[in-house]
Amino acid sequence: MNDEHKDLIRTIQKIYPRLSKGQKLIAEFISNNYDKAAFMTASKLGIKVGVSESTVVRFANTLGYDGYPKLQRELQELIKTKLTTVQRLEMSKDYSNESAVLKKVLKADMDNIRATIEEIDAEVFQKVVNSIFDAKRIYILGLRSSTTLAEYLGFYLNLIHDNVKVVTSGVSDIFEQMIRVGKEDLVIGISFPRYSTNTLNALKYTKDQGALVVGITDSQVSPIASIADYTLTARSHMATFVDSLVAPLSLINALVVAVGMREKDEITSTFDALEKIWEKHNIYNGKK
Amino acid sequence: MNDEHKDLIRTIQKIYPRLSKGQKLIAEFISNNYDKAAFMTASKLGIKVGVSESTVVRFANTLGYDGYPKLQRELQELIKTKLTTVQRLEMSKDYSNESAVLKKVLKADMDNIRATIEEIDAEVFQKVVNSIFDAKRIYILGLRSSTTLAEYLGFYLNLIHDNVKVVTSGVSDIFEQMIRVGKEDLVIGISFPRYSTNTLNALKYTKDQGALVVGITDSQVSPIASIADYTLTARSHMATFVDSLVAPLSLINALVVAVGMREKDEITSTFDALEKIWEKHNIYNGKK
Amino acid sequence: MNDEHKDLIRTIQKIYPRLSKGQKLIAEFISNNYDKAAFMTASKLGIKVGVSESTVVRFANTLGYDGYPKLQRELQELIKTKLTTVQRLEMSKDYSNESAVLKKVLKADMDNIRATIEEIDAEVFQKVVNSIFDAKRIYILGLRSSTTLAEYLGFYLNLIHDNVKVVTSGVSDIFEQMIRVGKEDLVIGISFPRYSTNTLNALKYTKDQGALVVGITDSQVSPIASIADYTLTARSHMATFVDSLVAPLSLINALVVAVGMREKDEITSTFDALEKIWEKHNIYNGKK
Amino acid sequence: MNDEHKDLIRTIQKIYPRLSKGQKLIAEFISNNYDKAAFMTASKLGIKVGVSESTVVRFANTLGYDGYPKLQRELQELIKTKLTTVQRLEMSKDYSNESAVLKKVLKADMDNIRATIEEIDAEVFQKVVNSIFDAKRIYILGLRSSTTLAEYLGFYLNLIHDNVKVVTSGVSDIFEQMIRVGKEDLVIGISFPRYSTNTLNALKYTKDQGALVVGITDSQVSPIASIADYTLTARSHMATFVDSLVAPLSLINALVVAVGMREKDEITSTFDALEKIWEKHNIYNGKK
Repeated sequence: MNDEHKDLIRTIQKIYPRLSKGQKLIAEFISNNYDKAAFMTASKLGIKVGVSESTVVRFANTLGYDGYPKLQRELQELIKTKLTTVQRLEMSKDYSNESAVLKKVLKADMDNIRATIEEIDAEVFQKVVNSIFDAKRIYILGLRSSTTLAEYLGFYLNLIHDNVKVVTSGVSDIFEQMIRVGKEDLVIGISFPRYSTNTLNALKYTKDQGALVVGITDSQVSPIASIADYTLTARSHMATFVDSLVAPLSLINALVVAVGMREKDEITSTFDALEKIWEKHNIYNGKK
Repeated sequence: MNDEHKDLIRTIQKIYPRLSKGQKLIAEFISNNYDKAAFMTASKLGIKVGVSESTVVRFANTLGYDGYPKLQRELQELIKTKLTTVQRLEMSKDYSNESAVLKKVLKADMDNIRATIEEIDAEVFQKVVNSIFDAKRIYILGLRSSTTLAEYLGFYLNLIHDNVKVVTSGVSDIFEQMIRVGKEDLVIGISFPRYSTNTLNALKYTKDQGALVVGITDSQVSPIASIADYTLTARSHMATFVDSLVAPLSLINALVVAVGMREKDEITSTFDALEKIWEKHNIYNGKK
Repeated sequence: MNDEHKDLIRTIQKIYPRLSKGQKLIAEFISNNYDKAAFMTASKLGIKVGVSESTVVRFANTLGYDGYPKLQRELQELIKTKLTTVQRLEMSKDYSNESAVLKKVLKADMDNIRATIEEIDAEVFQKVVNSIFDAKRIYILGLRSSTTLAEYLGFYLNLIHDNVKVVTSGVSDIFEQMIRVGKEDLVIGISFPRYSTNTLNALKYTKDQGALVVGITDSQVSPIASIADYTLTARSHMATFVDSLVAPLSLINALVVAVGMREKDEITSTFDALEKIWEKHNIYNGKK
Repeated sequence: MNDEHKDLIRTIQKIYPRLSKGQKLIAEFISNNYDKAAFMTASKLGIKVGVSESTVVRFANTLGYDGYPKLQRELQELIKTKLTTVQRLEMSKDYSNESAVLKKVLKADMDNIRATIEEIDAEVFQKVVNSIFDAKRIYILGLRSSTTLAEYLGFYLNLIHDNVKVVTSGVSDIFEQMIRVGKEDLVIGISFPRYSTNTLNALKYTKDQGALVVGITDSQVSPIASIADYTLTARSHMATFVDSLVAPLSLINALVVAVGMREKDEITSTFDALEKIWEKHNIYNGKK
């Protein structure tokens, strides 16, 4: 994040005590929901927090912006580059009452799923499911905390299809693991803020090789979205120092179920075979 | 699962066509929600599906049970041993309309989080947070699909504390990784249906060595709960062939935030250092 | 190991002080080289340690065996079941002079490679190389310390061929990773003492599914050898508490080079592509 | 590698047909053993290949160097930057007779171990063993193919000591895994040609934090050696497209045995405990 963007949040915090009551409401909403505010008009933002449109415009002026659109563009930049973890810690006062943390986090995650349901494009979802059936090979790429999502998706798709490869950091680097990627292949790239540079570089490479690229990320302005042929978005924002992968995981569940329901016979026979092996080797508890 | 329990679900499916309209409602509710039904009285179950208590009792009789409590006990056994994946595929007709899958799964996950909020014991949660601060060493154990949860929790706790070890399958077996576990240590075992035998054996071992055991699992009748000193439950049931780790992941988010808020200074300085390294080596996108 | 076999080594140690000078030489040789002694006739063993054949026979009698062949059979059993690590620690006095450890271990590893050259069947090696080219899919299975060998072999074969999968402990169990193994596939199982039960079970399973099984193990009497279609042996014995995977790793180098030399053009074009990527992303040091 | 160095090998290959018989011997020796040649005087190189010192000097002149020392410096540069894999494939004609590959590779590995015995500094080895006992925490860092060596060393040191952490690519990046490294800690960095940039950056970081750095690498002119407090070298060169980690693995065996022999009681009690667990859970084959 360049210094200009950092300044926006600091400035809001600094001038907060001097703001009018209505402007304080705007300041709070933006601090906690800058990812939503970034896509609201002055009028809509006013309605949301219960102030007039002109209060919103004056708030932009107070911050030194020559009109609300300039402030909005700044907020959109903010989403792209995201806050550092340290900045987010400063902002997470909401969670300082420890006994409230449990419910707050779970509710925030429910909100994230709800927002995901509202925002996701069902047609794109359908196209992604189709692309999983059409691909010659499927690569699932996720690094850092997205590794867990990639492995989870790979775990289930591997039980359904024979051509699935999870690409993550390891003995081979991610380019070596995808060196043969080509035109008939599908690459599912999973990346959430703060977007790993390596994931972006690797997706660009696979795109250049002619593969179809599906991005699973947090918004249509994510750098992943500018590379991917299809982008599925799931909300990951949480007003504390961790991003939440809960809504993304739920989206991945939906992908697995949609793929699985088309391949019921294949899955049934795979699991029939596995059940016999599991029973023989006592992998699971509770069998007698 | 022993044959008797398998028979219960089969019997319900077999006699379904011959049931009265009211009994069909009970049959459907039990098939889709046997984990809830298992803990409802006949009267409550009747209210839930909109039939009289005596219809519920007659339904139990039709199935060959000498009263509703016997049926209920059978359902409780069913949860413990869980259905095989093949049986679950047979039961997941709800998800056969592909265009509806996306919303159905995300809504089911919201329901799972909601149920988790209702059922979880906030006091136990607080005790678990305390135990993370009191422990000499913290072992986080998760196998198979729970590996992803264990790694996610370990990823964040490692940034906060210096004494955290994720135990999962690898070059060393899980016992080798925990061979020094002792009285002052905390073991967080994550296990969801169908409970891995290895996880249970390893938790029993650490319990015998005197460690405090925290279980993260799906219900108080899970085999994990019978070993653990404290059990945190999160719903994982989904009426299809995958279990959902969405609510468990949200619970883990809450744990991370609660621990993190107490250690704000420690995290701030850790992240300050990491930000500098990340910037220097260009780990993340969007920095200039 | 059953008690009878443990007794053999203990008995040798117990009676050692009372043995004649020539018998002591036999006792020492057997303790340090029971894997070689197990396949020597009384006459050959005598020549090796510089005593008469009848001294060897008397030594067997002193130990309570009715003739040398009985002692020999006992030694062969010993190899199959192997000593526990604790027993091996007791026997590793040779390494107690710390300043000598470095050279002793490296020389023991050279000896292991030399013995591997002498014992390995070049024709079988050739057949294994051929089978790598003939296979539809190649699974490389190694657990515990053999994981490192499996990953190393997989690392290189993946650069040469498109159909290679390393199977090791992880999110998916080893059976899930190989559930589709079939008649046209090759499974390379790597297992050294003390042979992992899971590796043996998994190899038996793939054999039952009709796959060609290649074993890389330490001797023709290893349990792997009784399952595999082709067995390549490399010495792993070391008279201390670790087994050495040095000679096995050298054998794997030879496999990689032999496969690679046949596919020079394929490798050249793969590496040409990788070099460009590596240079672009600065993966390796020393490029300008 | 910059173009100048690439040219050296190409030039040798290009002028080869026009060389005198004696100069051809020098050309062959340098091509196959440039890592040795780089440290030989003109006189020694002459003796090695059986030609006069002046023939060696004329050879340098033919290549366009103003005296042998200039050629020698060029060869030393070559080692630092190493050949690309593609160049090495071009040079590996020696291995084109497939039936000879097996023995050639195994013998080359024996030679590598022999050279390692000759070149390694026993006093430094002793100091490294001491540092393992003195460290508060031990980090073992290895990326790409050195991952297997790091995991192998970690596997054994973890059985002996309680403070050992293997650092390799994964969910957490390598800096996150070492963010708390400090003055009393030991970092063992394993890196062989072509040296991973990330390993070098991470070692520099730990050095800056005040940790003691031990490098395990292929030569005293490796970039690792310029960072490390103590450097242990093992030969990894092989005149084909793979580097061999055989001698490095043997060196690591020696480290493990040397550490283990000092901690015999600790290991004995650890293994006593593990044996009981392994027997109970049937981890290893061949126990009755």
